[in-house]
Amino acid sequence: MDAIAEPTGTGTRVENLVTPTLLLDRSKLDRNIQRLAEHAEKLGVVMRPHMKTAKSIDVARRVFPGEPGPITVSTIAEAEYFAEHGYPDMTYAVGLSPASALRAMELCRRTGADLKLLLDTVEQADALADVRKATGVTPSVFIELDCDDHRGGLKPDDPKLVEVADRVVAAGAELVGVLAHAGESYALNTPAALVKAAENERLATVKAAEILRARGHACPIVSLGSTPTAHFAENLDGVTELRAGVYMFFDLVQHGVGVCAIDDIAISVLATVIGSKPEKGWVLIDAGWMALSRDRGTASQQIDQGYGVVCDETGQVLEDVIVVQASQEHGILAVRSGSGKSMPDLPLGTRVRILPNHACAMAAQHDFYSVLNGKSPEIEARWERIRGW
Amino acid sequence: MDAIAEPTGTGTRVENLVTPTLLLDRSKLDRNIQRLAEHAEKLGVVMRPHMKTAKSIDVARRVFPGEPGPITVSTIAEAEYFAEHGYPDMTYAVGLSPASALRAMELCRRTGADLKLLLDTVEQADALADVRKATGVTPSVFIELDCDDHRGGLKPDDPKLVEVADRVVAAGAELVGVLAHAGESYALNTPAALVKAAENERLATVKAAEILRARGHACPIVSLGSTPTAHFAENLDGVTELRAGVYMFFDLVQHGVGVCAIDDIAISVLATVIGSKPEKGWVLIDAGWMALSRDRGTASQQIDQGYGVVCDETGQVLEDVIVVQASQEHGILAVRSGSGKSMPDLPLGTRVRILPNHACAMAAQHDFYSVLNGKSPEIEARWERIRGW
Repeated sequence: MDAIAEPTGTGTRVENLVTPTLLLDRSKLDRNIQRLAEHAEKLGVVMRPHMKTAKSIDVARRVFPGEPGPITVSTIAEAEYFAEHGYPDMTYAVGLSPASALRAMELCRRTGADLKLLLDTVEQADALADVRKATGVTPSVFIELDCDDHRGGLKPDDPKLVEVADRVVAAGAELVGVLAHAGESYALNTPAALVKAAENERLATVKAAEILRARGHACPIVSLGSTPTAHFAENLDGVTELRAGVYMFFDLVQHGVGVCAIDDIAISVLATVIGSKPEKGWVLIDAGWMALSRDRGTASQQIDQGYGVVCDETGQVLEDVIVVQASQEHGILAVRSGSGKSMPDLPLGTRVRILPNHACAMAAQHDFYSVLNGKSPEIEARWERIRGW
Repeated sequence: MDAIAEPTGTGTRVENLVTPTLLLDRSKLDRNIQRLAEHAEKLGVVMRPHMKTAKSIDVARRVFPGEPGPITVSTIAEAEYFAEHGYPDMTYAVGLSPASALRAMELCRRTGADLKLLLDTVEQADALADVRKATGVTPSVFIELDCDDHRGGLKPDDPKLVEVADRVVAAGAELVGVLAHAGESYALNTPAALVKAAENERLATVKAAEILRARGHACPIVSLGSTPTAHFAENLDGVTELRAGVYMFFDLVQHGVGVCAIDDIAISVLATVIGSKPEKGWVLIDAGWMALSRDRGTASQQIDQGYGVVCDETGQVLEDVIVVQASQEHGILAVRSGSGKSMPDLPLGTRVRILPNHACAMAAQHDFYSVLNGKSPEIEARWERIRGW
């Protein structure tokens, strides 16, 4: 593990950190990584983790302690960063524009990395001819599939699937496979529904690959995944690789879906008590939405966790205490409505940890992780994150 | 204005910017700054703008083209940044913890700046004695008032007001005044209600100052403000300074409150069309919540603007087209439900601008502004923002 480049506060113990700040529990991170790696191995597929949640080379090194492996990225800036760190095989899992495809292929030419692109229209396929001409690089392309009406992509039985594949080839690009993301699985909350969503994702993806192969496209990669379906898939026959991102950290939304325990959540924001309103049952902290994010993903779940679940400084959950309101740099803690509990005593200066609704969104509010291990107050490392596009 | 330090994309025209990216219209910024400056002058109060929205020395220089004036900050990191740029008089408008007060006074000792602190409890007041002892700096302190049950602060008639003031003095700190923020004004939407909220904020603040003065505290500064009440205040007798932050940029929430026109909104995210689902009336763009923020502040207003109002590349509003859904790096554009409109043709590669629900939250997702002027496609400057705590 990288040593601490500079202190994250006035010292390297949790009690000395400047708040609010982002904590990462390395033991939970490692456990979460291990869990899905074992599942993927059992199912006979390659893991292509999505780095959009962690955005950190140090976290990537926990996934790949040896040689850099295949990864997924959400921005060209992430691709540039991981290419610089020696990652040779990446998928940019956002539909291409002519401009982003050009940047991507320039990156490939400059670094030798293979950055695979995603598309679902003939217009995008046609644009690749110019990109190839301008950069001298042959784009590797996935066709995006739509398995659950979530966002973009083509249904496997859409006649455009074959048309787009043919146009990719006509543009001089290489069709490397099909890619699906069962984004609607986030809205589920029973094992049976999740198993079904995973199987639906598999069936759609394998069907599309078969249709393309019947038309003469080799379609070597059959890629799918979302954190919920990745964990609940029981059979991935015909699939070659699995993608997931938030699984490394987990969060309260994933807990609400049923994918993880609260205790699996590896990141939190450390905050300090700055006041109270006893007559309202409020305790004020110095972490608002700037530190926690505006994400309210649990608002539509069975248990609304407000802006996050509150733990003590060691990470022990304070039962039924949540962040009920957040402004830019203020959070208001209170007991969950209807819980019948009373607020624990949290005097001025007390440190608390706030668990995220959505790990991707909370982490994005910070430039680095202060890495610790379980309840130990020692900060082992500072891991930088990247930003931007 | 600072020249462009480095290109923001492959060129310095809007069509060459890498998307998504944050645009700032300098002419609108200047107009918004001028508008509130004139109002404050008419009302006979000093402006102490809140830099939490802009977080940029270049924007501060538009407010203070000459000597740096008094400002408000939301983090000690902002205070450090503005102190380095010569700002001598700042208020840290978040309730202090012992640790933040120590950092603040160390900053004052190191730079000579006067960073005023905020508190509302005897515990906070008592903690100042140690801070003074450790740093050798006498803290300047505001007592935070609560004029509308929004968050922290003391009601003017709370006996604790005088008790806290006495304890501030007993701790060897200097009580410089009282400070209120009518945060509930964001929930209003009629001129009459806003005028009333502004007057209520004034009455509470002046009353508290009078109570303290009757007890022998000089209370030289009487500070109040929120963007809505600052604009609707008709009389600020007894008040010495006005604070506001989002007024520089404005946003859709402020438009919903009734403080600004859509055309006053000075920032937007430039995005590129990456696909469409004509059968659903969807157009996909490369700006999701990572670029737009998760803020859904208009959801509770009369007009829900989704994740933002869509404009063409020049900033002209596409009527009734909004961002209806956002994932991390994808936004989905569609016509507002019930509008009866049909989606305009936005082919692959088309550039659009998205106006923010909440300017503070959108800007926080970006590291710099690409500054332009009205409909001109020329990028005049790149202004950096700061982050962190």
